[in-house]
Amino acid sequence: MAKAGDLVEIITKVKKYKGILMPEPKILKSKTIVIKLDSGYNIGIEKKKVKKIKLLKKAKPKKEKRKKIRQNKKLPTVSILSTGGTISSRVDYTTGGTYASLTADDFIEMEPKLLKFADVRAKQILQIMSEDVHPDDWIKIAKAVKKELDKKEVAGVVITHGTDTLHYTAAMLSFMFPKLSKPVVLVGAQRSTDRGSSDTFMNLICATISATQKIGEVMVCMHANPDDNFCYLHRAVKVRKMHTSRRDAFRSINQFPIAKVFPDGRIEKIIPSKSPDEETELNIKIDKKVAIVYVYPGMNPKILENYSKYHGIVLMGTGLGHVPHNLIAKVKSLTKKGIPVCITSQCLYGRTHEFVYSNLRKLRNAGAIFCGDMLPETAYVKLMYVLGKTKKVEKVREMMQTNLKGEINDAISVEMFLN
Amino acid sequence: MAKAGDLVEIITKVKKYKGILMPEPKILKSKTIVIKLDSGYNIGIEKKKVKKIKLLKKAKPKKEKRKKIRQNKKLPTVSILSTGGTISSRVDYTTGGTYASLTADDFIEMEPKLLKFADVRAKQILQIMSEDVHPDDWIKIAKAVKKELDKKEVAGVVITHGTDTLHYTAAMLSFMFPKLSKPVVLVGAQRSTDRGSSDTFMNLICATISATQKIGEVMVCMHANPDDNFCYLHRAVKVRKMHTSRRDAFRSINQFPIAKVFPDGRIEKIIPSKSPDEETELNIKIDKKVAIVYVYPGMNPKILENYSKYHGIVLMGTGLGHVPHNLIAKVKSLTKKGIPVCITSQCLYGRTHEFVYSNLRKLRNAGAIFCGDMLPETAYVKLMYVLGKTKKVEKVREMMQTNLKGEINDAISVEMFLN
Repeated sequence: MAKAGDLVEIITKVKKYKGILMPEPKILKSKTIVIKLDSGYNIGIEKKKVKKIKLLKKAKPKKEKRKKIRQNKKLPTVSILSTGGTISSRVDYTTGGTYASLTADDFIEMEPKLLKFADVRAKQILQIMSEDVHPDDWIKIAKAVKKELDKKEVAGVVITHGTDTLHYTAAMLSFMFPKLSKPVVLVGAQRSTDRGSSDTFMNLICATISATQKIGEVMVCMHANPDDNFCYLHRAVKVRKMHTSRRDAFRSINQFPIAKVFPDGRIEKIIPSKSPDEETELNIKIDKKVAIVYVYPGMNPKILENYSKYHGIVLMGTGLGHVPHNLIAKVKSLTKKGIPVCITSQCLYGRTHEFVYSNLRKLRNAGAIFCGDMLPETAYVKLMYVLGKTKKVEKVREMMQTNLKGEINDAISVEMFLN
Repeated sequence: MAKAGDLVEIITKVKKYKGILMPEPKILKSKTIVIKLDSGYNIGIEKKKVKKIKLLKKAKPKKEKRKKIRQNKKLPTVSILSTGGTISSRVDYTTGGTYASLTADDFIEMEPKLLKFADVRAKQILQIMSEDVHPDDWIKIAKAVKKELDKKEVAGVVITHGTDTLHYTAAMLSFMFPKLSKPVVLVGAQRSTDRGSSDTFMNLICATISATQKIGEVMVCMHANPDDNFCYLHRAVKVRKMHTSRRDAFRSINQFPIAKVFPDGRIEKIIPSKSPDEETELNIKIDKKVAIVYVYPGMNPKILENYSKYHGIVLMGTGLGHVPHNLIAKVKSLTKKGIPVCITSQCLYGRTHEFVYSNLRKLRNAGAIFCGDMLPETAYVKLMYVLGKTKKVEKVREMMQTNLKGEINDAISVEMFLN
């Protein structure tokens, strides 16, 4: 049986093709076999047209001479849990594809500086790109984190994660750990390790340093600016990916980052972080029947009827939390059915208000729950968490409007906008 | 018959209430009569419970002694068209409510400095808050603009508009005017005129100055920073409201603003603006059956089935334009039905890509149309415009991916991020 990397001949009814067999994507059931021709081009051949795959030459097995890693047992222990994403990706030069394949052990081997700051352990718990992370994965990650945190010798946990939905996962973990005795730091990379401009290792070193601190919060550690000089440590519930490709894509919104973290080990605190709790408490009961709905001019109010089987909705309204007036009656009917409707703003910066304009008051009177300055993504995961505790709309309102993990900031300052 | 402002007695079966009758909101059919009590509090009484409304005292009619406005006929003529919104709002001190009520004529009377830069005309074309602006209103506004531009003596048009959806209207007007011989400038205010910190008049003065320039673009003119020193003139298709309440809420995304405009009349160009066309061409044929759909982890792919009667969809994907893998088949089946699916990013900054990762290539192969660095709001109005011209998916792809009005910027620079 030919495997990815082998030289093969693909025989169809009409033709033969010779080339290196490319790895099959793990995510989708592929109907195509892809081979890399001598010319360097990849071609796809429909599986159903293939009569035979002839193995011409086995790929050389990669040398698995993993270096003996010398750990300094006097340093605090940090567990790195890898989940996939660009930070775990590398180009396979046999095949030309990029796949999430680096394990946490690989990180340690590739960047020995990690060992300067911690006695590092590594475990691969998932192998998915972040666009495919599902709420069920949040539960898996949370359980794996809990397992590590329960080990007496572990000082903190680092989770490597794809960047696209890293902030959703981070915010959800914040709520799933009502009490946290040690730091949990999520980290990703915008450029894979095989690129000269890769941010993988600086992010990983800074995350590891952060995970040795006395902090009882879930945080995100990523490049702070286009220079390679430090990372920001963000509060998980207040951070968002704001750029598709830049290494400093992650920005704290309506809040300052917690700290600057330098790859030489220095930490400069910007705002107070939460002190560690005595113990760690995990609460994974969430309700996944929640949706985010974007509001726009000309939106057909009937769209909201499609969500009548949901248990909660987060609307991304305009400005202070407005919706077109013909949506207000739909919000009312959802609320009456016991489906809480939460209001956030598509502006992202600033807070929603329920009183400034009469249309806002009407929306409030229709039962909408205004989420202050909470990010839409944070409101989405928080609503899942809250619905795991209660289905009563008024209780949901109370919990959504109560600051649990720093997700509501009553003291937004001028410098928190677009910096 | 009692009118707003009158002192009345409301008589129900059980009680009598005395107070000032509040104006009825024009937008919703109100089932409630609201009066302001002597205590200053407003109370609402259900109309069906009201037996009689007794007029106690007519409100004093407001003195309508409009000043004779002296225009300088040597200055360029600018037409100000008002549509409503905060910029047209004022507190009615009889009733305490804020309503969109200022007309363009009021602006001139309240801010005589406007007359320093232009021979100003004013017309009220709509009276709505911007959360209620509908695609049909875009057509009304476009027609009113065309009428003004067709007047030989008019140098440019200013449109006052609520801020919530101002960027949607501005972007749509850009497309509706394939050719533009004079500048069209949209302007709003984040704080109403009765507040000390109101940005109404500085914005309006800078917009009026902008409308006297030799520019053939639709633009947005708003406060540039928390100081009151200048406004930015933004390209309409590249600007977005990024803060719920700040006066400098509007930011150019993936592009520099066109110019700094100072209230003393100076203009400092930042990037080249489009030169005026020989003539103005209006094209109001749009297809309103378009929706914006936000993508998030755990999203049920069946949500896309709700849009099978739509003519086009704009997805706000994660990162470079990703969607969870189980959405890809749904995108394919929509495209096969002839419904174009356009990809933008919820990051807002940066551009979408169709090749960097294998999941992006799959989405591309499923028929998705990647919109480069186009804002989701701009993609939404552009798709309506494009569908007004053609329903063929491949033709739609070609037009969506062709830069018509500066909505696609192939030269994003470092300074265009979060500044």
